[in-house]
Amino acid sequence: MSLPAIWYLPAPNHTRTVFAPAVYQRLLDNFALTINPGPGGLSAQQVEEGLHQFDGVVTGWGTPPLTPAALQRAGRLQIVAHSAGSVKHLFTPEQVEGELIPRQLCVASANGAIALNVAEHTVGALIAMCRQWFTHARNIREKGLWLDPGLPKTGQFLRGATIGLISASTVGREVIRLLQPFDVQILVYDPFLSDWEAGRLGVEKVELDEAFRRADMVTVHAPKIPETYHLIGARQLGLLRNGAVFVNTSRGAVLDHEALLAEARTGRILVQLDVTDPEPLPADHPLRALENVVITPHTSGAGQYGYHRIGEYTLLALEAFFQRRPVPGRVDLTRWAQLA
Amino acid sequence: MSLPAIWYLPAPNHTRTVFAPAVYQRLLDNFALTINPGPGGLSAQQVEEGLHQFDGVVTGWGTPPLTPAALQRAGRLQIVAHSAGSVKHLFTPEQVEGELIPRQLCVASANGAIALNVAEHTVGALIAMCRQWFTHARNIREKGLWLDPGLPKTGQFLRGATIGLISASTVGREVIRLLQPFDVQILVYDPFLSDWEAGRLGVEKVELDEAFRRADMVTVHAPKIPETYHLIGARQLGLLRNGAVFVNTSRGAVLDHEALLAEARTGRILVQLDVTDPEPLPADHPLRALENVVITPHTSGAGQYGYHRIGEYTLLALEAFFQRRPVPGRVDLTRWAQLA
Repeated sequence: MSLPAIWYLPAPNHTRTVFAPAVYQRLLDNFALTINPGPGGLSAQQVEEGLHQFDGVVTGWGTPPLTPAALQRAGRLQIVAHSAGSVKHLFTPEQVEGELIPRQLCVASANGAIALNVAEHTVGALIAMCRQWFTHARNIREKGLWLDPGLPKTGQFLRGATIGLISASTVGREVIRLLQPFDVQILVYDPFLSDWEAGRLGVEKVELDEAFRRADMVTVHAPKIPETYHLIGARQLGLLRNGAVFVNTSRGAVLDHEALLAEARTGRILVQLDVTDPEPLPADHPLRALENVVITPHTSGAGQYGYHRIGEYTLLALEAFFQRRPVPGRVDLTRWAQLA
Repeated sequence: MSLPAIWYLPAPNHTRTVFAPAVYQRLLDNFALTINPGPGGLSAQQVEEGLHQFDGVVTGWGTPPLTPAALQRAGRLQIVAHSAGSVKHLFTPEQVEGELIPRQLCVASANGAIALNVAEHTVGALIAMCRQWFTHARNIREKGLWLDPGLPKTGQFLRGATIGLISASTVGREVIRLLQPFDVQILVYDPFLSDWEAGRLGVEKVELDEAFRRADMVTVHAPKIPETYHLIGARQLGLLRNGAVFVNTSRGAVLDHEALLAEARTGRILVQLDVTDPEPLPADHPLRALENVVITPHTSGAGQYGYHRIGEYTLLALEAFFQRRPVPGRVDLTRWAQLA
């Protein structure tokens, strides 16, 4: 029996990042793999010309969109296994509607793997911010101070806190799981979350404003879709209590940065951003300088653990598909508009 | 039936910090409480003069040691409920041996409550340090950089890491519990940990040096006793891999700070200290200035959640004792020398 023919598009440096050697070996063993020799990526044109020879394709960071022409010619193609998070840039909504769904093309993503890294970052951010580590550390490093008498030594830190979670996305659900041993109360705003599912997760469904009004800390995990553009603005931020923590690891566009700047300037709230709008922030952007705002350069999704899971997801998706088993990470194409 | 007479020694600001109003009210309801009107603490002399009128005493931050004279006169005294962590400064080893044990005085501490706060800090420190947040944030705030190309973007972060835990103390065990959902492998150095207990905790017992050699991150939770003075020195730190994280939230004396300075100066390891030796560090101490060393001012134990648990522990210890039930937080006086 001949092995399925798979075109592996990512460049070798991507492979080293997301495939543990044993996992990559299994990919080589179980499929007739044609790899991109690198060092760079392939062009959309190259993909268009070659794709018709394959049963499946592995995409990833830096691989080009699969153009209508490429897909239409690729009559054999049955599965696109994306060895990264979002698949939104791979196809247009028109392609999904007119081509992918009718021919039942399987699209699998490793979104759940990245989520593991982002959720770890989120829990750390909640702890670090409420405890004012960045200010303490700066006082000790730069000002010759020890415990600044102007800073509260204690407060409502993570344990026992009320956490407002914006979107029960894959990341949001993983945050809920990691927070279990911390005895927190979790309020979730997510218009797609059913009461049943909220009960199963042990969280309370609330409206957006209520999450900001009642929480000690708010963390944002909403997808970047037209409906979430500037979802969080002046009204929500103004509802946060004094000393509340606000963390965004989703996408900059979800948050009105002018409103954030105005609120953060008062010094009332503690903010950690891993994503910004624009991104990167210009070198002279005033958010960079605020004492109560900590910015990391979109690194929350990084981490070997989640990265190696990406490789595993990709391998397992291909194996499951060709063995006619349910495909882990299979994207529900009918919900394309709500996908992150 | 008359209520047990309890002398409540801590000053009012301590009471506000560690007793939630409802818990303090129950203390007032269930005992004949004589409170220190404040604002300051009582002297050892004052305690010596008054202690003989009470069945129990509540101690806490800032209350004086119970001198031999005080204890010997206090024939009615049956319980010392300490509304804080360590009780080591309350009595001399001679008092414990010659007076407390023979008369079966009950000493209860709220050590487990403080541990909840310290363990939360520890988990956050592991995440923050391996992800180089302090360096990223400084680059963005002060240098106009975004992602510094000289810094690795990813690496072995918390999930899936091998964690070296020095001492399965109360804090150490709580750290183990909080780390459960992170899929880590935990190596524990603790000469008092039995194989059975290591199995129950799901950790691997190792020698001290092995913990440093094998771990991606080491966190110290050892008690300050003569045997742990400079337990960690140049040999152990030198065994850490490049990029390893080292966190100390226990006591400064456990760590040879000259050796730490020498190792940290190489830039090889990432260090977070919440305790130092001396403490505070002098304003010009070179550890303060190192890029890869983050210092917080002994605030890991702070946090309203754990603080309010202190009040609850104290109340429950008194209630249990006078109802002849097992006392939560009761100190095993026969193990005084090993206590933190």
